Amino acid sequence: MRLVIVGGVAAGTKAASRARRVDPEMEITVYQEEPEPSISECGLPYLLSGVVGKREELVARTPERFAEQEIEVLVRHRVERIDPRKKVLSVRDLATGEAFEDSYDRLIVATGARAVLPPIPGADLDGVFKLRFLTDSDGVRRYMEERSPKRAVVVGGGYIGLEVAENLCRIGMEVSLVEGEDRVALAYGAEVSERVENHLRENGVRAYIGTKVEEFVGEGRIRGVRFGDADLETDLVIVGVGISPCVDLAEEAGAEIGPTGAIRVDTRMKTSLPDVWAAGDCVETTNLVSGRPVWVPLGDTANQMGRVAGTNAASPAEHHALEFPGVLGTGIFKVFGLGVGKTGLSEREAEVAGFEAVSAEVEVYDRAAYYPGAEKVFLKLIADKASGRLLGAESAGSGADKLTDICATALWGKLSYTDLVDIDLAYSPPYGPVLSPVIQAATILSGKFERANQSVKASE
Amino acid sequence: MRLVIVGGVAAGTKAASRARRVDPEMEITVYQEEPEPSISECGLPYLLSGVVGKREELVARTPERFAEQEIEVLVRHRVERIDPRKKVLSVRDLATGEAFEDSYDRLIVATGARAVLPPIPGADLDGVFKLRFLTDSDGVRRYMEERSPKRAVVVGGGYIGLEVAENLCRIGMEVSLVEGEDRVALAYGAEVSERVENHLRENGVRAYIGTKVEEFVGEGRIRGVRFGDADLETDLVIVGVGISPCVDLAEEAGAEIGPTGAIRVDTRMKTSLPDVWAAGDCVETTNLVSGRPVWVPLGDTANQMGRVAGTNAASPAEHHALEFPGVLGTGIFKVFGLGVGKTGLSEREAEVAGFEAVSAEVEVYDRAAYYPGAEKVFLKLIADKASGRLLGAESAGSGADKLTDICATALWGKLSYTDLVDIDLAYSPPYGPVLSPVIQAATILSGKFERANQSVKASE
Repeated sequence: MRLVIVGGVAAGTKAASRARRVDPEMEITVYQEEPEPSISECGLPYLLSGVVGKREELVARTPERFAEQEIEVLVRHRVERIDPRKKVLSVRDLATGEAFEDSYDRLIVATGARAVLPPIPGADLDGVFKLRFLTDSDGVRRYMEERSPKRAVVVGGGYIGLEVAENLCRIGMEVSLVEGEDRVALAYGAEVSERVENHLRENGVRAYIGTKVEEFVGEGRIRGVRFGDADLETDLVIVGVGISPCVDLAEEAGAEIGPTGAIRVDTRMKTSLPDVWAAGDCVETTNLVSGRPVWVPLGDTANQMGRVAGTNAASPAEHHALEFPGVLGTGIFKVFGLGVGKTGLSEREAEVAGFEAVSAEVEVYDRAAYYPGAEKVFLKLIADKASGRLLGAESAGSGADKLTDICATALWGKLSYTDLVDIDLAYSPPYGPVLSPVIQAATILSGKFERANQSVKASE
Repeated sequence: MRLVIVGGVAAGTKAASRARRVDPEMEITVYQEEPEPSISECGLPYLLSGVVGKREELVARTPERFAEQEIEVLVRHRVERIDPRKKVLSVRDLATGEAFEDSYDRLIVATGARAVLPPIPGADLDGVFKLRFLTDSDGVRRYMEERSPKRAVVVGGGYIGLEVAENLCRIGMEVSLVEGEDRVALAYGAEVSERVENHLRENGVRAYIGTKVEEFVGEGRIRGVRFGDADLETDLVIVGVGISPCVDLAEEAGAEIGPTGAIRVDTRMKTSLPDVWAAGDCVETTNLVSGRPVWVPLGDTANQMGRVAGTNAASPAEHHALEFPGVLGTGIFKVFGLGVGKTGLSEREAEVAGFEAVSAEVEVYDRAAYYPGAEKVFLKLIADKASGRLLGAESAGSGADKLTDICATALWGKLSYTDLVDIDLAYSPPYGPVLSPVIQAATILSGKFERANQSVKASE
């Protein structure tokens, strides 16, 4: 039995390791286009500032380490075609340029996602970068060493853009951030966006919000960015406006693509092609709150999907039983000292999904007010007016990671706001206020629901 | 309508505030034996070291503040008798010594718990303290100022004893901790106890474990502690061996006492007496994992119970509808740099409750290994072998508060270990490893369950 995996970052390598565990005899080959496998892509922004000191730290496992597990990892190899009837692959060795064929009994597609470069004139100038692969950060770092840029423009106010802005500030650069929409961190509500924007400015980032970049200006090398009325001089641009799933290979082989534009898989991570699974940033899954297909390209999810795909692809046919149920849309990022997390649906997303949402917010200390070091944290809970079911939560500030994870677990358990009023969380003065912000916000929600019910009764 | 509340710490004052919200017209009087109401008792250990600088910081609200809400708080007043047929109370003003009668339409008993002083000879010596009320910490601090003790013995290795040991170390005292059982932090499994003991020793506390104090030695004032072979010289003793519920008043009035020795209430916090509710450290509740009555005297739970009792006692009879479902047994403490939390049942408690438990442990970094400042955290998950349902979790180390709360929420939602394998928690390098320790431990549990099922199948 031969298992081939296309793509060797999070989902692909996890799938390989799991498959090896399930079947110690299977032949396993991973093809990886980039020169290293098993990259921690989430760490790339921190490599720019030296918060992460060496690029090697972001290579979780080398091909040699995989070889110890009898997993063959071939880097700088691009799979160019899949023939699902013959179960044959066309592969190109990027080092030599040579093409060859390989065959599989089972195949896992883990082709990931690529950074989107918007069609802005001058995007090909020297000094304009995206940041998706370790090779991208190599490029930025080389450019920094050679050109010693003093000023940077970050395009995009999503989490990548925000993390990059922080890390460029850390090394003393003068950083501007340009966001085309009317606020940063669009996956969140406006209260969180405002906190992030204030925090950026407090930390010295010039934020240009609601302004679309019209042109990257320069002759050969970047010299400035033009937008609206402004013409901003800069020595470096990093574009983080989004990524898109790499589906060409699977699509050309006939695999079904879902409504999000990513590869459609069932809960067993099976594509529509026989003996072909897919996992990671190239597939879509289900948002368990809205019940709708979503594309959520994140490292932790890719890992979990890879586990399921690898297990199932290595199991006897009658045992393809492990399932990946879907996601909540949980995420978190840090920008300077501010942690910002969310789970489930924002109010806007809830509306789009057909819910009428009720929300409550608190901004309270992260520990007993008398315990030293107390800092504020913001939490918003969003619930379904009809059923009371929790739909989502957003948090910003100290301990946002904890509050996000509590709410994610509550969503996972399909809890309602009433469940969160009495929930038994851990209290001690160094770790929280006597009633968790989750309990406080749920109690406020509870009051809103009561009043809504009373006014319904009164009008009956 | 007149509501009287006996006891003005967490449950009593919360009940008063809630009752005022529900019924703006009600007469509300709170009797409180100690000189201040609304004390944050959990902060007392930190007052000893000056981590909390002023005693006033631990008084959440003064009687004057309550008066603004038209809640009468009478401090230094002891309720000595309840006549539930006549709805009359006998009250003593401790300042003047005078007794008087009061009456109520509705009554909430929130008499709390008292510290247990074990029957050890010499427990009445000057310099031997317990630490339950603000007045106790006043006594310790006065003694410290007058006598400048250099050496301290803390009796008891529960969370109070551990917190006190830390805080006495902080001010440069030579601290010994004596625990009669064979390990500290008995509510936890042995792995956690060992970590706490090591951490105590690393921070300079001499820990005498499995050693019962036989005598406090001294003439008038404490001079030493005798146990086993040792005779330890000391200038100060703080005893933290436990607390017991204050039930005499309610019991003498005829209220039913539960099997734990605390006042029995229903889920509406109603006692067996007409128009009498009870809440806080004086009542028992249900452990929602074991389904059994438990007595869990904690500040956050007292607050939540007070909310329910206050709402119900102030509502028209047909609306006594708010319920307090019970607890999980969630708790957390900090000792020096180590956070230690648990929720649900320990393995021992699971066994006592009739479960066959399966457990899995991880000790991993609290963030991406490459992100600066990564520290280890221990997590143990305990599940029911028969159903897979999560029964409990214990954590020690950095982020133990987050992991404990994730698991508490999972228990609250009655999740099983399988639910935690795929759960969508928040990942970013500064906030966790790519797969949360909860997911990692659940995955190990999953493997144990699989192997157990395979061996069952093989033997069939």
